[in-house]
Amino acid sequence: MLIIGELINTSRKLIREAVEKKDGEYIKQIAKAQEEAGATYIDVNCGTCIETEIETMEWLVDNILQVTSLPLCIDSPNPLALQAGLKKAVNGKSMINSITGETPRWNAVLPLVKEFDTKIIALCIDDGGMPKTNEDRIRIADYIITKLTGEGINIDDIYIDPLIKPVSAGQKNGIEVLQAIQCIMETHPGVHTTCGLSNISYSLPARKVLNRLFMVQTMARGMDSYIMDPTNKEMRAALLASQTLLGQDRFSRKFLKGFREGLYD
Amino acid sequence: MLIIGELINTSRKLIREAVEKKDGEYIKQIAKAQEEAGATYIDVNCGTCIETEIETMEWLVDNILQVTSLPLCIDSPNPLALQAGLKKAVNGKSMINSITGETPRWNAVLPLVKEFDTKIIALCIDDGGMPKTNEDRIRIADYIITKLTGEGINIDDIYIDPLIKPVSAGQKNGIEVLQAIQCIMETHPGVHTTCGLSNISYSLPARKVLNRLFMVQTMARGMDSYIMDPTNKEMRAALLASQTLLGQDRFSRKFLKGFREGLYD
Repeated sequence: MLIIGELINTSRKLIREAVEKKDGEYIKQIAKAQEEAGATYIDVNCGTCIETEIETMEWLVDNILQVTSLPLCIDSPNPLALQAGLKKAVNGKSMINSITGETPRWNAVLPLVKEFDTKIIALCIDDGGMPKTNEDRIRIADYIITKLTGEGINIDDIYIDPLIKPVSAGQKNGIEVLQAIQCIMETHPGVHTTCGLSNISYSLPARKVLNRLFMVQTMARGMDSYIMDPTNKEMRAALLASQTLLGQDRFSRKFLKGFREGLYD
Repeated sequence: MLIIGELINTSRKLIREAVEKKDGEYIKQIAKAQEEAGATYIDVNCGTCIETEIETMEWLVDNILQVTSLPLCIDSPNPLALQAGLKKAVNGKSMINSITGETPRWNAVLPLVKEFDTKIIALCIDDGGMPKTNEDRIRIADYIITKLTGEGINIDDIYIDPLIKPVSAGQKNGIEVLQAIQCIMETHPGVHTTCGLSNISYSLPARKVLNRLFMVQTMARGMDSYIMDPTNKEMRAALLASQTLLGQDRFSRKFLKGFREGLYD
C-alpha cells in the first residue's frame, strides 16, 4: 500500500499562506505529520502559484527534505516545475504526478520519468480526452501501460489513476471504477492503481463517509495506492481495518497497533 | 439488497427471557424496530430452546405476524421446527435458513423449500464438511446451485452463504471470501450471496468496525444480502452509503433520506 500524503498543496489555504510568508516551519510540520501518520510518499503541488511555481517547488522540496527521509511525489501540470522538483528530490525513488496519454503531456513527461528513474502516476486520458465509457477507461489504461513498458518503464513503477467521477453525475460512476481497477490489474499483473477519493462524493452530503467507504470498496477490488490525507483519523482507521481484512497485515500487527493508539475509540 | 434482521434469536439473552416470560410485546417491539430500520426479512431462530423449539417457533411467528407484513426467514437446525414455522409464516415468500450439501440436511430441507415455495439460504458445506480451501468453497457452491436449480428451484431464490472464517485464524480468510463471492455470482448469473458478518472479526478488537467494513468489502464484490442487525446505526449508515457508491440507490434517495434523519451525525 502506497499512501501519498496530499496535504502540501498550495490550493489549500494554510499552505498557500505559508508559501507567501515563507513559513518553512509550517511546511516541515505538515510533512512530518504525514510521515508520522503513515504516508509513504509526500506529494508536493504548487500548481496554483503559476507565476512562481518553479522557485516555490524548489523551496517546498528544500524544506520537506529537512525533516523527512520519505520520497516525494512531484505534482504539477508544468513539466518545468516537475523537473525543478525532481532535481532536488533526492530521497529514494521519486514519483511524478502525472503523465497522460495525451501526446504533448506524454512527450514532455516521459523523458523526466526516464531521466530521474521515477515511479509514475498515469491518468486515464488520451488525445480523445477523458474516458466517456468504462471501455474507454480500460482501453486508455491498456494503451498507456503498454506504451510505458515498451519504453522500458518497469510495470511496478506504474500507478494508473482511473479518474474518479462523482456518483451524483452518474449512478454507475463508482461501480465502473471498481470494475476497471480489477480489469486493469488482472490484465497487467504487477501494475498498481491509485486515485484521489474526494471526487466520488461531489455534491453529496457526508462526503468524508463516502470518500472513506469508497477507499474500502476500491481496496476490495485491488487498488493499492491513494492520494489522501493520512492524518485523518477515520480514514486511517478504515485503511488499517481494511488491510487486516484483506490479509495485507501480517498477524494484524498494524491494526492492533492502531487500536492500542486509540484509532477506534 | 435483502436484509435479514437477525435480532429474534433465543441465543440473545433478552429474547430468551422474553420467550421464558411469554412476553410477546418485547418480541413484537423487536420485529417492528427491525422493519422500521430497513429489514426486508425477519429471521426467527429459537434453536437454543431444544426441548420446546417447535412451540416456541410457533409462538414467535404468531407474535411477529401481529406487527409486520414483512416475510420471515425461518432459521433452525431442526427440520420439524422449520416446518412448524413455515406453516405459520404467511407473509409473502418465506425464506429458510438453511440448507447444505450434506445428504441428511439436503434430504430433510429440500422438500420444505418445494412445499412452501421459499427462498433458501445454502451454506457451503457438503458431505466432506466445511470447505478447507477456497476451491472447495467454490466447488461446493457450484454443486449446490446446480443441484437446487436441477430440482426446479428458481436461481433468484437461492442465497449462497460462503461461510465466513475469522481473519485471526487465517490471513487469507477475508480475501478468499471476496474472490469466492464474485466467482460464484459470475458463474451463476442471478444467484444471490449472503452471510453473517461477525465471524470475520472473531478474537480481534474493534469488531464492529471490522464487521462493518467487511460488509462494505463484500458488497464491492457483489454480495447482495446480509443477516445482520439493521437497527445498528453505524451499520445502516455504511450500508446506505455503500449502496449509493455502488449505483444501487437511484438519485441517492435512500442515502439522502438517511442523512436527513441524522444517520451521519
